[in-house]
Amino acid sequence: MTEIFDILDPIFHPRSVAFVGITISDPSHWTRTFWEAFRKFKFNGPLYPVNPRGGELDGHKVYLSLDDIPDNVDYAIGTVAARIAPEIVRQCARKGIKAIHFCTAGFAETGEKEVAGLQDELTRLARETGVRVIGPNCMGIYCPESKMSFDSSFPLEAGPVSVISQSGGNTEFLIMEAGWRGVRFNKVVSFGNACDLNECDFLEYFIQDPTTRVIALYLEGVRDGGRFFDLIKKASAEKTVVLIKGGFGEAGARATATHTASLAGNHLIWEALCRQFNLIRPRNMEEMVDVLVTLTFMPDPGGRNVILIGPGGGASVLLTDEFERRGFRLPPLPQSIRNKLVSFTRLAGNMLGNPIDYSQSMMESDNLLRAVEILTDWDEVDFCMGFLRPSQLSIEAFAAMFSESLSQAYSKSHKPVGYICEDARLPERNNAIFQLIQKIVATKMPLYYTFPAAAEALKMVIEYNECRLSREAAAAARQ
Amino acid sequence: MTEIFDILDPIFHPRSVAFVGITISDPSHWTRTFWEAFRKFKFNGPLYPVNPRGGELDGHKVYLSLDDIPDNVDYAIGTVAARIAPEIVRQCARKGIKAIHFCTAGFAETGEKEVAGLQDELTRLARETGVRVIGPNCMGIYCPESKMSFDSSFPLEAGPVSVISQSGGNTEFLIMEAGWRGVRFNKVVSFGNACDLNECDFLEYFIQDPTTRVIALYLEGVRDGGRFFDLIKKASAEKTVVLIKGGFGEAGARATATHTASLAGNHLIWEALCRQFNLIRPRNMEEMVDVLVTLTFMPDPGGRNVILIGPGGGASVLLTDEFERRGFRLPPLPQSIRNKLVSFTRLAGNMLGNPIDYSQSMMESDNLLRAVEILTDWDEVDFCMGFLRPSQLSIEAFAAMFSESLSQAYSKSHKPVGYICEDARLPERNNAIFQLIQKIVATKMPLYYTFPAAAEALKMVIEYNECRLSREAAAAARQ
Repeated sequence: MTEIFDILDPIFHPRSVAFVGITISDPSHWTRTFWEAFRKFKFNGPLYPVNPRGGELDGHKVYLSLDDIPDNVDYAIGTVAARIAPEIVRQCARKGIKAIHFCTAGFAETGEKEVAGLQDELTRLARETGVRVIGPNCMGIYCPESKMSFDSSFPLEAGPVSVISQSGGNTEFLIMEAGWRGVRFNKVVSFGNACDLNECDFLEYFIQDPTTRVIALYLEGVRDGGRFFDLIKKASAEKTVVLIKGGFGEAGARATATHTASLAGNHLIWEALCRQFNLIRPRNMEEMVDVLVTLTFMPDPGGRNVILIGPGGGASVLLTDEFERRGFRLPPLPQSIRNKLVSFTRLAGNMLGNPIDYSQSMMESDNLLRAVEILTDWDEVDFCMGFLRPSQLSIEAFAAMFSESLSQAYSKSHKPVGYICEDARLPERNNAIFQLIQKIVATKMPLYYTFPAAAEALKMVIEYNECRLSREAAAAARQ
Repeated sequence: MTEIFDILDPIFHPRSVAFVGITISDPSHWTRTFWEAFRKFKFNGPLYPVNPRGGELDGHKVYLSLDDIPDNVDYAIGTVAARIAPEIVRQCARKGIKAIHFCTAGFAETGEKEVAGLQDELTRLARETGVRVIGPNCMGIYCPESKMSFDSSFPLEAGPVSVISQSGGNTEFLIMEAGWRGVRFNKVVSFGNACDLNECDFLEYFIQDPTTRVIALYLEGVRDGGRFFDLIKKASAEKTVVLIKGGFGEAGARATATHTASLAGNHLIWEALCRQFNLIRPRNMEEMVDVLVTLTFMPDPGGRNVILIGPGGGASVLLTDEFERRGFRLPPLPQSIRNKLVSFTRLAGNMLGNPIDYSQSMMESDNLLRAVEILTDWDEVDFCMGFLRPSQLSIEAFAAMFSESLSQAYSKSHKPVGYICEDARLPERNNAIFQLIQKIVATKMPLYYTFPAAAEALKMVIEYNECRLSREAAAAARQ
């Protein structure tokens, strides 16, 4: 383990936490976010609210300053105004607090000289005092294992995905959206302006962290290109790395500068880096969610031969187009398989090829169960995608279908199976579909909301697997 | 007006309609779909249910056959079994009914010889008797002006968009999804296997139809390539044409054959056709909806300079990437505009460049109103896109924001304005967001659900406009 592991591992596992600058009077104030989240997660250690006005919060004494706390404190979360931040770092140093996360904005990202000076002061103080700083201008740490969170609605359970992100909002979006689809996270850090601890430090830590299997990054720029290059090379050799680099063009680079005071760098360099180290590169957070869902729930199918099955002729055609356009193959059903299907379903209104439209007679759940078993037993198939366009069916019809047999059908499959269930717009349908989606997620199937999203995520992950295997084979051949 | 106009215009404006093969005993039977829709739309003329068992339906006498109806009938909708369809065409001929739509499936699309023979018989009977046939295996006509519909939840009001579609399901999806976002339709036809009337007939009619301004096509194949080429050329010269050609690759072509017995044709030919005649070519129904929303509500901005404004730094960066990647420009705010904005907003937590992050202080509605006015008055800007990621804000916060000033702010703008409001997943948020989206739609702003969807649709429509104008200029120069 490197030095940075020994620094960061305790920061992700503090025994006590202080909340500096928390508002006592207004329960809905943004500074209460972290307090509420730690309590919801039942953080297993003392929590100390700190506010110069004193008082009491949820039965806890409010301390006037960090100095007043009688016990040891491992970690602090600062929600004070920017101009006070340097003084708080000095207090941390006096108190022996090893690290502080500043959520506070209003530093270098404003582009104003006087406040940029404040950020430089934080950097200098961190170096001088040894107090490590996360931020400013960020959401800090979510680590379910340690019961740390910056949102009380994040999943309580831990998983294999760790996240390094320069945007609190994008991280929030990622965890919520991926969370509803069953993805669970190991260690997540939103680190904002990175006046001290930066992407390289967290990357070095996560590479060595045995519970992290997938590393997802949202970066707007890197400070030390050479170190980042070495680390991302190492990371990609040992884990699966998913990367979004925000700030594509001229205005994007300008935006990253005003957002997190980052230098965006040339996007061609980033593209080359992703190819060289076989990083998975979604274009936006929605695609990153789809990729994490795929990595979490889709075993490598080992090939590109897919069966598509769901209701709707036109929908089948367009879904097929999405898959074929991305290099997947749909082997045509041989007469032997077709005969098996015809033995229990009508021809009219069904397309018994591949794609398979089971709009009508196969809507009975027993038939669906039999069909999926027959299809996934067929040697030509690497994986199967079911789909549902909610507008095609009554809620009652497909809810019944699902609760009775879909999960059963797909869990009996010997091949990987994914499912596409489009989201509903109308509130009266949304609730039923949300329930349905939760049922699908509970079966540990990868669940996608749109045809192109499913095809694109599967393409990215299968290409990643193909590349990884061929590089491993090439390396083995050289030995 | 050509002969086909004189044939089709009465079919889209019948004075009386018979429903042949409608189920009387079961109100939820699929054959009742059309009956319910015509009644919901308050069709202005007699409706005749026909079923050999007789009886009464919603106060209407059920006739035993078409022959039994004492009055003239203009149009029939057939939901009889495939094998009976030829006999029904003969009854239409005897009764003087000019056209019949067969919803019934189970013809050439099954790939089975005996039932394909049935479809050939329909074709022959149509030629012999002069009774024109729509279908089989399709949903037929939706024409709000004539109160004809195949779904009782379609919008009652008419608009400028006409649709020619070979998939009932895709058409249903298109009308519902575009309808929720304010798009209104003129004449829509789902024509399925096209045993008689086909895509060319409807295209020829819509070209001449003065109330159709936009023609959207979902095709799986064409029967007469030469005629189609001539018509699409004419259509593109006089109207805006949006085209999806389903069936991209090998399996897609196979799927179109089993879906509507179509020959898909080489996709390179379709691409060349789209370029040659400046057709807008979305890749899937979701993109077609986005394009129709843009054509309906976004006046041509006349340029690619966009202002992006909404809450969230990371979201701003990624939205900017979506627009820059597609050739849009975000002119940086000059100090003069920046000064105007700074006079009433704080710097911290806001990015006052372009994109503009108004996460914090500008969330007060008066400030948003002032900001949008200042920004859209600036000469460098061609159009403005607002955005909202619902996960960033409490429902209450943005609902308040919207109801008070957003529509006002954007309606005061002198430049075209669009809005991106991501859909909610959680049922408890979905209702609030649906209400919000309805408010945005009511202001006649184009509304999109995702960042890439908005950027892609605007790119397609702006490229269409650029191409149209440069071709017109070239044509004018030649004269």
